[in-house]
Amino acid sequence: MTETIADVAEAAARGGAAVTQNHVKIFDTTLRDGEQSPGATMTHDEKLEIAQLLDEMGVDIIEAGFPIASVGDFEAVQEIAAQARNASICGLARANFADIDRCWEAVKHARKPRIHTFIGTSPLHRAIPNLSMDEMAVRIHDTVTHARNLCEDVQWSPMDATRTEHDYLCRVVEIAIKAGATTINIPDTVGYTAPRESAALIRMLLERVPGADAVTFATHCHNDLGMATANALAAVEAGARQIECTINGLGERAGNTALEEVVMAMRVRNDILPYRTGIDTTKIMNISRKVAAVSGFQVQPNKAIVGKNAFAHESGIHQDGMLKNPQNFEIMRPEDVGLSASNLVMGKHSGRAALRSKLRDLGYDMGDNQLNDVFVRFKALADRKKEVYDDDLVALMQEAEQEASNEHLKVKFLRVICGTEAPQSADLTLTIDGVDRQVTAQGDGPVDATFNAVKAIFPHQARLHLYQVHAVTEGTDAQATVSVRMEEDGRIVTGTASDTDTVVASAKAYVSALNRLITRRRRNPDDRKEISYKDMG
Amino acid sequence: MTETIADVAEAAARGGAAVTQNHVKIFDTTLRDGEQSPGATMTHDEKLEIAQLLDEMGVDIIEAGFPIASVGDFEAVQEIAAQARNASICGLARANFADIDRCWEAVKHARKPRIHTFIGTSPLHRAIPNLSMDEMAVRIHDTVTHARNLCEDVQWSPMDATRTEHDYLCRVVEIAIKAGATTINIPDTVGYTAPRESAALIRMLLERVPGADAVTFATHCHNDLGMATANALAAVEAGARQIECTINGLGERAGNTALEEVVMAMRVRNDILPYRTGIDTTKIMNISRKVAAVSGFQVQPNKAIVGKNAFAHESGIHQDGMLKNPQNFEIMRPEDVGLSASNLVMGKHSGRAALRSKLRDLGYDMGDNQLNDVFVRFKALADRKKEVYDDDLVALMQEAEQEASNEHLKVKFLRVICGTEAPQSADLTLTIDGVDRQVTAQGDGPVDATFNAVKAIFPHQARLHLYQVHAVTEGTDAQATVSVRMEEDGRIVTGTASDTDTVVASAKAYVSALNRLITRRRRNPDDRKEISYKDMG
Repeated sequence: MTETIADVAEAAARGGAAVTQNHVKIFDTTLRDGEQSPGATMTHDEKLEIAQLLDEMGVDIIEAGFPIASVGDFEAVQEIAAQARNASICGLARANFADIDRCWEAVKHARKPRIHTFIGTSPLHRAIPNLSMDEMAVRIHDTVTHARNLCEDVQWSPMDATRTEHDYLCRVVEIAIKAGATTINIPDTVGYTAPRESAALIRMLLERVPGADAVTFATHCHNDLGMATANALAAVEAGARQIECTINGLGERAGNTALEEVVMAMRVRNDILPYRTGIDTTKIMNISRKVAAVSGFQVQPNKAIVGKNAFAHESGIHQDGMLKNPQNFEIMRPEDVGLSASNLVMGKHSGRAALRSKLRDLGYDMGDNQLNDVFVRFKALADRKKEVYDDDLVALMQEAEQEASNEHLKVKFLRVICGTEAPQSADLTLTIDGVDRQVTAQGDGPVDATFNAVKAIFPHQARLHLYQVHAVTEGTDAQATVSVRMEEDGRIVTGTASDTDTVVASAKAYVSALNRLITRRRRNPDDRKEISYKDMG
Repeated sequence: MTETIADVAEAAARGGAAVTQNHVKIFDTTLRDGEQSPGATMTHDEKLEIAQLLDEMGVDIIEAGFPIASVGDFEAVQEIAAQARNASICGLARANFADIDRCWEAVKHARKPRIHTFIGTSPLHRAIPNLSMDEMAVRIHDTVTHARNLCEDVQWSPMDATRTEHDYLCRVVEIAIKAGATTINIPDTVGYTAPRESAALIRMLLERVPGADAVTFATHCHNDLGMATANALAAVEAGARQIECTINGLGERAGNTALEEVVMAMRVRNDILPYRTGIDTTKIMNISRKVAAVSGFQVQPNKAIVGKNAFAHESGIHQDGMLKNPQNFEIMRPEDVGLSASNLVMGKHSGRAALRSKLRDLGYDMGDNQLNDVFVRFKALADRKKEVYDDDLVALMQEAEQEASNEHLKVKFLRVICGTEAPQSADLTLTIDGVDRQVTAQGDGPVDATFNAVKAIFPHQARLHLYQVHAVTEGTDAQATVSVRMEEDGRIVTGTASDTDTVVASAKAYVSALNRLITRRRRNPDDRKEISYKDMG
């Protein structure tokens, strides 16, 4: 029987029997471990949207959150479980029944639910609950058995495995397997490992632990020493068949293994890494941009695969080698990761068909009515800028999408006077549920004055967490994209907006964040994150 | 005989005989391969400053540029050679006498000069000059011999070595060694290799090539698949004793091996990577910030070692594990890389002594007069901001340094009116060599209007390459740092400035770039980059 790559991917997505020995499952934890990085908190709607993109790109398992941490986490996991078409949906739970029950409640309506439960096993982490080996054995046995009674698919992790003594690690893994865990994940929690060690650890477990051949081993690496990708691939070479990773390598500290790096490495170097994944690599750039936008974590230009320069070559006077033969310096094609061949798009003479086609390349498919609205915005932008780049269009689409969501407040008019002589002042008119309100306020700088004006018209207690400006394209007539993240009673929201005027973009982003806050107040009056992953209950 | 780490480092810096078998030389190519990345071009003064920091931090060899590429490259390498105290200074040259002669002219006054010459040896690269094996042998023999007749220390690289046939590679390396090369560098030009291969290649060369034991093997990796750090360390384990790398992993496409990652990996994991370098790791953060500022390549928050979040932990409601024992989640201390323990610095009540001590931590040592000037600026900033962070101080110091350089133009007064109703207008007064000139101009957005006003007062042909805004700290009263990069007749300059008002920062940055352009016009009327690295002469 011959299988095409599509067959295998399709079967893998179904969790079906055609999955071959060289299929490596991709377990994405952007929404759990990634979302945990300071400042990367995502809103409910952003999580749903990213989960959908992950599902569409062929991720095998989506770790959607930590259900007991907060009402918001619970509801996000629950909705993602309900919406997922192909991917298994997994929730995280500590080693206690309450966590596991809550996790099951969140994932049980998924077509393919998974419970992921963990306990710290290294000397440093065991010291916190202070369990004896016997108590640890009972805890692991009882919690895994409990999870397994609820759900067929149970993943178990010994947190800080790479700093756990080998004998101890073999023993706890054996207990978890006997209790019914179907996937054993080996986390390098502190990003400590080197590739040879990562491989040796998996090989040791496969050789020494009874029953190891009946479960899937997973590798979960952090990038503290810059080796997460190599460590994950070394683990696969030693027999692991699941890689835990995040888009853009998002995650605490230096982040997790980057999905795009391991997937593209196995593809580009299939000669020495003969493994397959179910990932449609042409969807990489689109989801990378989305995750960067919602997390506020920009990708550096020299980031592998998804950085702005990853496919760019010397911009010097001569590019002879490159022009003569792109293979001289390119090991993959920009199209392989969904990057359009040319970054230069269109100007004011571009038509509707060209816009639709370009937007489709960028991952936006839309009907005629929606296209009309976008076309008007595009024309207005093209009038102000000579050249419209892909990044401009992505910014424009994000703004359009955000405006389409609930809008209680709207910026109607803004005039700011700023410069070297303080104070700066802002004259602002906001429309609140249809009614105009006007005020003039002062501040330190144009943005501070503008935000003070918003606060004067719409008083609130939300605290500003982050204010970021990105010039999305080059030149002084560039569109500026502004992100504003704010917090009220534990609820965190992000607003973004683009305009050629930074100050106007700032006002719109701030108002957009407030709109989201109002929506969330109404939906989840009690949504606060109460427990963290590291709370050993 | 017992040696302290300091002895070894000191001896290594001198190139002395006490260098032990486990000393790995750090060859930094931030100023050559890093500077080659599109958009990262640095000015003459920036290169000198970075070279000095590299020298002070204990880098063994600094690749300072590609002397034949332009008058500017030549002069930068020449000045860096003259100023270096400990490091060897290396220039790049293609496989021809003109390149090598020009390179020698640039480096010959260094205390320890090195010539680095290369030729493409993979099938794809050999096809461009289309040499037979015999012609290739003659070319390598003649050019390396020529270099060796000029300079005792000659490094030779077979470009695209990792895609060169093993037999062919052994043969060309043998020819280069026989001709007198003292270091053989093995470049993974396209970032194609995996760690096992990287190790196997070095091992193969050491085993098969006659004379291999008498030279130093170097590894030069690119990060296209995210494995540069692991590849470089694997090569060291196999016997390489020089790592080529850049600060922040700057470089073409996904960049080069990051210096900070390989150095810290060998330090943190000295149990399994028992190698030493001469690097003072506490200088890492300072030079990382400097390279990010002058290249305009921001470091992403989740970048290993030097990212803003590299040492940050979950900002959630509970941080129990971390608070109980930092070792639970930290494998290195922030102080090890020169990051001050707390990021929060000072406010308006902080005194002169506290400022001096903090600035010293940040790498700025200064006399009383200079401190007085900075203290005035600090107080003005502290009045506007409640809390002054390390990043604010670094921005302030950079601005002070830039102002101290030649100042023909100066922003005296700026008032901008902007907002939702076009056109935006700027009322600007510039002081040109002591004389005030005033104008009012319009534009698309406040920045465009401001730049149009500058152009109206001081007409010029320079083209804007890049305009970037970074909010250096969080909050609406954050200082904004603006970078402006412009080009005139092949000369590229960058201006940066900070202010709580983005528009004022933009005006100052633009004027600062113009000041630099005027200085360079006067100094090097003919400085243009004429040849690129990939031009196979």
